[in-house]
Amino acid sequence: MCSVVGIYGNENASKLCFYSLFSMQHRGQEAAGISSSDGKHIKTLKNRGLVTQIFKEEHFKILKGDMAIGHTRYSTAGNDSILDAQPVFARYGLGEISIVHNGNLVNAKEIRNELTKKGAIFQTNMDTENIIHLIAKDYTKNTLKERIIDAVKKIKGAFSLIILSRSKMFAIRDPFGFRPLSLGKLKSGGYIVASETCAFDLVGAEFIRDIKPGEMVIFEHNKIKSEMIFEPNLKQCIFEYIYFARPDSQVFGKNVYHMRKEMGKELAKELPVNADMVVPVPDSGVAAALGYSQQSGIPFEMAIMRNHYVGRTFIEPTQEIRDLKVKMKLSPIKYKIKGKKLVVIDDSIVRGTTSRRIVRMLREAGAKEVHMRIASPATIDPCYYGVDTPTKEELIASKMSIEKICEYIEADSLAYLSINGIIKAIKDKKENYCFACFDGNYPIL
Amino acid sequence: MCSVVGIYGNENASKLCFYSLFSMQHRGQEAAGISSSDGKHIKTLKNRGLVTQIFKEEHFKILKGDMAIGHTRYSTAGNDSILDAQPVFARYGLGEISIVHNGNLVNAKEIRNELTKKGAIFQTNMDTENIIHLIAKDYTKNTLKERIIDAVKKIKGAFSLIILSRSKMFAIRDPFGFRPLSLGKLKSGGYIVASETCAFDLVGAEFIRDIKPGEMVIFEHNKIKSEMIFEPNLKQCIFEYIYFARPDSQVFGKNVYHMRKEMGKELAKELPVNADMVVPVPDSGVAAALGYSQQSGIPFEMAIMRNHYVGRTFIEPTQEIRDLKVKMKLSPIKYKIKGKKLVVIDDSIVRGTTSRRIVRMLREAGAKEVHMRIASPATIDPCYYGVDTPTKEELIASKMSIEKICEYIEADSLAYLSINGIIKAIKDKKENYCFACFDGNYPIL
Amino acid sequence: MCSVVGIYGNENASKLCFYSLFSMQHRGQEAAGISSSDGKHIKTLKNRGLVTQIFKEEHFKILKGDMAIGHTRYSTAGNDSILDAQPVFARYGLGEISIVHNGNLVNAKEIRNELTKKGAIFQTNMDTENIIHLIAKDYTKNTLKERIIDAVKKIKGAFSLIILSRSKMFAIRDPFGFRPLSLGKLKSGGYIVASETCAFDLVGAEFIRDIKPGEMVIFEHNKIKSEMIFEPNLKQCIFEYIYFARPDSQVFGKNVYHMRKEMGKELAKELPVNADMVVPVPDSGVAAALGYSQQSGIPFEMAIMRNHYVGRTFIEPTQEIRDLKVKMKLSPIKYKIKGKKLVVIDDSIVRGTTSRRIVRMLREAGAKEVHMRIASPATIDPCYYGVDTPTKEELIASKMSIEKICEYIEADSLAYLSINGIIKAIKDKKENYCFACFDGNYPIL
Amino acid sequence: MCSVVGIYGNENASKLCFYSLFSMQHRGQEAAGISSSDGKHIKTLKNRGLVTQIFKEEHFKILKGDMAIGHTRYSTAGNDSILDAQPVFARYGLGEISIVHNGNLVNAKEIRNELTKKGAIFQTNMDTENIIHLIAKDYTKNTLKERIIDAVKKIKGAFSLIILSRSKMFAIRDPFGFRPLSLGKLKSGGYIVASETCAFDLVGAEFIRDIKPGEMVIFEHNKIKSEMIFEPNLKQCIFEYIYFARPDSQVFGKNVYHMRKEMGKELAKELPVNADMVVPVPDSGVAAALGYSQQSGIPFEMAIMRNHYVGRTFIEPTQEIRDLKVKMKLSPIKYKIKGKKLVVIDDSIVRGTTSRRIVRMLREAGAKEVHMRIASPATIDPCYYGVDTPTKEELIASKMSIEKICEYIEADSLAYLSINGIIKAIKDKKENYCFACFDGNYPIL
Repeated sequence: MCSVVGIYGNENASKLCFYSLFSMQHRGQEAAGISSSDGKHIKTLKNRGLVTQIFKEEHFKILKGDMAIGHTRYSTAGNDSILDAQPVFARYGLGEISIVHNGNLVNAKEIRNELTKKGAIFQTNMDTENIIHLIAKDYTKNTLKERIIDAVKKIKGAFSLIILSRSKMFAIRDPFGFRPLSLGKLKSGGYIVASETCAFDLVGAEFIRDIKPGEMVIFEHNKIKSEMIFEPNLKQCIFEYIYFARPDSQVFGKNVYHMRKEMGKELAKELPVNADMVVPVPDSGVAAALGYSQQSGIPFEMAIMRNHYVGRTFIEPTQEIRDLKVKMKLSPIKYKIKGKKLVVIDDSIVRGTTSRRIVRMLREAGAKEVHMRIASPATIDPCYYGVDTPTKEELIASKMSIEKICEYIEADSLAYLSINGIIKAIKDKKENYCFACFDGNYPIL
Repeated sequence: MCSVVGIYGNENASKLCFYSLFSMQHRGQEAAGISSSDGKHIKTLKNRGLVTQIFKEEHFKILKGDMAIGHTRYSTAGNDSILDAQPVFARYGLGEISIVHNGNLVNAKEIRNELTKKGAIFQTNMDTENIIHLIAKDYTKNTLKERIIDAVKKIKGAFSLIILSRSKMFAIRDPFGFRPLSLGKLKSGGYIVASETCAFDLVGAEFIRDIKPGEMVIFEHNKIKSEMIFEPNLKQCIFEYIYFARPDSQVFGKNVYHMRKEMGKELAKELPVNADMVVPVPDSGVAAALGYSQQSGIPFEMAIMRNHYVGRTFIEPTQEIRDLKVKMKLSPIKYKIKGKKLVVIDDSIVRGTTSRRIVRMLREAGAKEVHMRIASPATIDPCYYGVDTPTKEELIASKMSIEKICEYIEADSLAYLSINGIIKAIKDKKENYCFACFDGNYPIL
Repeated sequence: MCSVVGIYGNENASKLCFYSLFSMQHRGQEAAGISSSDGKHIKTLKNRGLVTQIFKEEHFKILKGDMAIGHTRYSTAGNDSILDAQPVFARYGLGEISIVHNGNLVNAKEIRNELTKKGAIFQTNMDTENIIHLIAKDYTKNTLKERIIDAVKKIKGAFSLIILSRSKMFAIRDPFGFRPLSLGKLKSGGYIVASETCAFDLVGAEFIRDIKPGEMVIFEHNKIKSEMIFEPNLKQCIFEYIYFARPDSQVFGKNVYHMRKEMGKELAKELPVNADMVVPVPDSGVAAALGYSQQSGIPFEMAIMRNHYVGRTFIEPTQEIRDLKVKMKLSPIKYKIKGKKLVVIDDSIVRGTTSRRIVRMLREAGAKEVHMRIASPATIDPCYYGVDTPTKEELIASKMSIEKICEYIEADSLAYLSINGIIKAIKDKKENYCFACFDGNYPIL
Repeated sequence: MCSVVGIYGNENASKLCFYSLFSMQHRGQEAAGISSSDGKHIKTLKNRGLVTQIFKEEHFKILKGDMAIGHTRYSTAGNDSILDAQPVFARYGLGEISIVHNGNLVNAKEIRNELTKKGAIFQTNMDTENIIHLIAKDYTKNTLKERIIDAVKKIKGAFSLIILSRSKMFAIRDPFGFRPLSLGKLKSGGYIVASETCAFDLVGAEFIRDIKPGEMVIFEHNKIKSEMIFEPNLKQCIFEYIYFARPDSQVFGKNVYHMRKEMGKELAKELPVNADMVVPVPDSGVAAALGYSQQSGIPFEMAIMRNHYVGRTFIEPTQEIRDLKVKMKLSPIKYKIKGKKLVVIDDSIVRGTTSRRIVRMLREAGAKEVHMRIASPATIDPCYYGVDTPTKEELIASKMSIEKICEYIEADSLAYLSINGIIKAIKDKKENYCFACFDGNYPIL
């Protein structure tokens, strides 16, 4: 995950970045940052935490200028977590540069090894640092634009990049289009580029179009220019529809909530079950459960409640409180559940522990049968393109058959939506999407 | 609002109070506290904030003993907000006492004036202090039980009380039964009394029965005894069903989620509308919207999303971001809304400003028509029994006709459920409930 | 300890209270509070912590009016530490009242028992609550002034009180004058009453005179009136000179720094020692050490440094760091100490553990001899008049002979100043002071 | 300023770093950090704030291994303050490296420009990053030791460096020996290198010797080896004696407290004044004032008190409180000062504003005459070797004659110690020290 945003040509550039990042907070809660340029210098502020915790009104006096880029970070693994936040800023041969990156490079290690052999130093664990190095060391080229093109041709993997120099902004999407990146026009002037269109709605921007796979959009002299720098080879991440993106966003040209409902409908067609009610795991399974209910005719009930006061508590549970963690977050409505056959809908199963706790909780609440239906195929392979999935060993579906998983999570039945079902739901060509986490067919390694 | 809990006869009494308060946090977020007794002394810890912010593991070593009471407070108006948290503890003629109170007394001022004339001092703004004074000054009676009975016979209004002495616990509900109070048996030993049964589910307790209106339950010598101290005159607060209580709680013998759905069904019968979809204002309107949809056959869509990262931000919005506050909290799914006729369901309208912002937001998202349907009658009168409603002047429905409100909130149509509709939904006698906020018929003043 | 302040007749009353409390922070770091009156209502804000942590600029908009009282609290023992802060505010028969109190009552328990028998409730552990009760229950008298006089005639012990009503302020000092209380005139208008004159210097006030033992000063109609309500029987706390008060304050008519130096001189006369240098324990022993040096001719050296970055650290020391706590706070200058005979001066020894650590540290630094000289007699009895001394069992001098203490603290010699030495130093009559902690002669019990 | 520490061969390496940094906190309060190596990987934790605020017990489980280096940072100017903390860690061609640096390079900009031309990127504003780049890019050499030697031969200026690789530690001091760096033996095993010996006293280490100017000490295979890599050209920073170092430290072979006293004595010889008492500005002027008093025979008085509760307050002063900031920190003892002629001793004057406030405060307290004596020459030039002096424009002595400064600070007389006086005080050769801030003779530019 992670989200990126760029604002060009608006006097409130850094503040609009802030609001955009707030709306994309679901794509990364560990760290966030903003760089802005006033034409002379780039200023950067980044830190760990949520965007509302990091930024104060006074920061926007420092983050001045009419161009800014921002980032929210999903996880910060590695040696020095303070440094591992974006944007990554550097001074280099052509001046100053700052980069935000959503995605993951598959040849980062090779590039890193090659560069360190030539004397480069790496201060962070982020792929983004590679890209700056490639740009900085390309001294046969005299313009940043040329250098960026050279650099992105050397990197492989998933990248939705926004690059800020002191006077320009560049937005680039890899030829596979793994991660989304959309272009909009701000009602208050200038342009916005963001991972998800939900940012456009909050800051008041009109959607223009997606940045094309392989395209570089250049923001300069108050204009935008486009250049195709790669032959597109569409492999959009299907997990954006299943889990990542916000329901109100348009991703890869389609509405996410609608896609999830359609997947729920396909799930009902493929995997019917005789039940009294369809119950979503909130909030992840709500849209698919609605689709399942509409298709199957089985009534939809919000019979599991999500607690909004879940915060961190350090009070040890007394012995008698079993499965406390899930119970503090989710509460079953016993009155509705007691004696009933439930189809429980969720978007995915990763390790299986949460599903198991939910099933137990529903049985304690008196459910007669619990049929788990998952609105995506079994996740058997890790993602190398920017999704922070666990290792293969941790993915329950890579170690167990569906029957065994069903037993493990203590459900009466368990079934997953097929890849084919997804294709039908999204009404698009299979080859346009990456299903590697489900079938191990990695477009690039 | 406010919530109360009492645990009797369990070695983890204060910790079980903590978890119970956590599950009833929706009834009061301003302050919280716990008193416990180890038979020799009562210890109290209370503070402003959420229960997870106030209590740390080490506090439970101080809050020892197998009896404890707790409270979450909705609002702390008044002179000294630090003092205005509960439990209210005091040393008095018979030893030590601590009280938690959900409700509001209508004769608090009279009692206060009378008592101060006789030399009493009042250090807080809470009605609870009156009750302790009445108990302390009743020196013709030699037992706490007798004094409590004398005291509660002097107070008028709404009171669900739990009283802790060094060796006993008392639970009392006023004769009208305005506020809920339920009795349960802990699987790990002992008893629990709590405002809502959702506390029972988290801490592992079986529901026994509601404390009856006018009843006092005494917890002593590891037993419970019951005594009716008032003639019951049932006037249960209808707003518990409409807004306060958690959907998974059983309140006044009925499930709250189920009641809300039934009200939604009645709303659909009373106030049909020709629309493309039923959309709840999340989360308050969800259950009623499901009922409306099931009754009317109009599809239910979660077309307004609730943002879970809403925290406090002190960043001033740029001029172009209109209605920022509601937009940071709620996001419409434009794809679904565009060109559609919507029935928007909410539980109530207080000042009208939020409804107005929601309607505007839906229009900006392209809604063709916005029909607002409210799953309760228009709130025209303030509550004197513990609900923190605004003054009559602030209640939009006390100043404007429904037509005017509709105009103000910029909806295409607006309608409220009738009192009769509520009666049908709850399938109970009208006289058992207090509808004063809707019709001005106050059971006691 | 504890400090009190009252401001009358200044539009910045509460803010001047804040600065006064800041300057008297050394008299109590646990909690602080301010009450102010605008003629109509008294507002109170109090909390745990330092005054700079508790008060924010916005609070002074709430704490309005031209009269205010404040308090810093030394320790908050007891049941409910949140409540145990001052001022203590109450509504009572004559309106509103708020009190701050420095001192300790010896008959608090008797009064409390008597009052609870008559139906009073006590919500805190503070003696101050007794005083409010006595005032409130005195309904044969119709004016606050009369009631205050009645009340203070019932209490016994140490009390420097400031009482705020909605339109008046009263300052009262017990007949013994145990605790200081001074009156000043603010250059910006109005009057100030404070425990120490150092407050006058910070806020810009001229010292007028001390409030007399047994006197009540009434601030009303922009004037001050005085009334003697007790026959004075002077027993001023000698520990104010030895330890409590700030060196720059004038206490009981004398300068504290000067008194300490004089005591140091007497110490040198009484207890000479053959040494290379006089070394104070910073900061408590500095003034006495200067006096000792000037009298004895032995050079004064600041050979123990105080570390200003001592904050709370929760890092466990590694095994090899002995006596870490004292070493993080105090550092010996080895270069000066090595091979030298030291006279180390401190103001008092309580438990002996710190002295022991200091002696050890000096030996590790190479001191040839360490002679400890204490600028006060051995503390053998607890104080009942407001000093938070440990119990008799904890006072090392109540359990051990001076020889044994010397052995325990591992010094080469140890000697204490005599009571007679103190008398000579302060050049005043012995009978005007309370020496109970040194000789057990309690003026009142 | 800034401080550095390195621990080698002790299982509690990172914790001993923590305590060392605590004792050197006076050399930098803005940021701090520690890197440790367990032989396989280097871990780093750094942040803004005081060391006691940054480090928690759990961090030492991450910062494992028996080698560690640490840093406290004085100020963090620049673009991205989060990054501008040390140690600076990087992965490079030979593995992993982490560096701490006390001092300032005069050719940092040239190196930076040259390196960026060759493709290097700079992510911080710290000179330390240059050094890592030089090491990383020196690919003709195969060992870190050789590369370090090459690198430090390219840099010019002040550097006391400690470099950590996965299995070795290096300590290097520039040929001028501008900044101190001492070597000690830990009683609990292994070695310590630190800016000041006060660290040795806290963690339990014996002073061995200073790292020599131009020396590199290599810690490897549990041994230390020394190599001279530069011809020494001693120019030790005289300001370490005047202001920076802690009085209990041995710096450049001499005790700091003793040096300050000696300077005070020279000040008395050079600049006698007819006065009643010698008063230090606490704590900076204490040692010099003691020397002045001992030399002149004028009594020493601690007639200005330092307030230990100075914390940050955001309360705006009322109009009548003049010079609030200095008054909250320093309090004159009026009783001692009134009508007296004072010699006030401080270590230096930078902008003059604080001195002016102190003089005013003393006059308000009744001083008859205020003679300011400064225990160092007038500071007229900025430092380029690691002292964070203001620019030349801000230094009052670079703009005004001593007479004018005296007038500005409103003193009766003002005099500074001469460079010659310092030489006499330290009893050392002038050419061994850098006096550039006093005479503009920069040893290297």
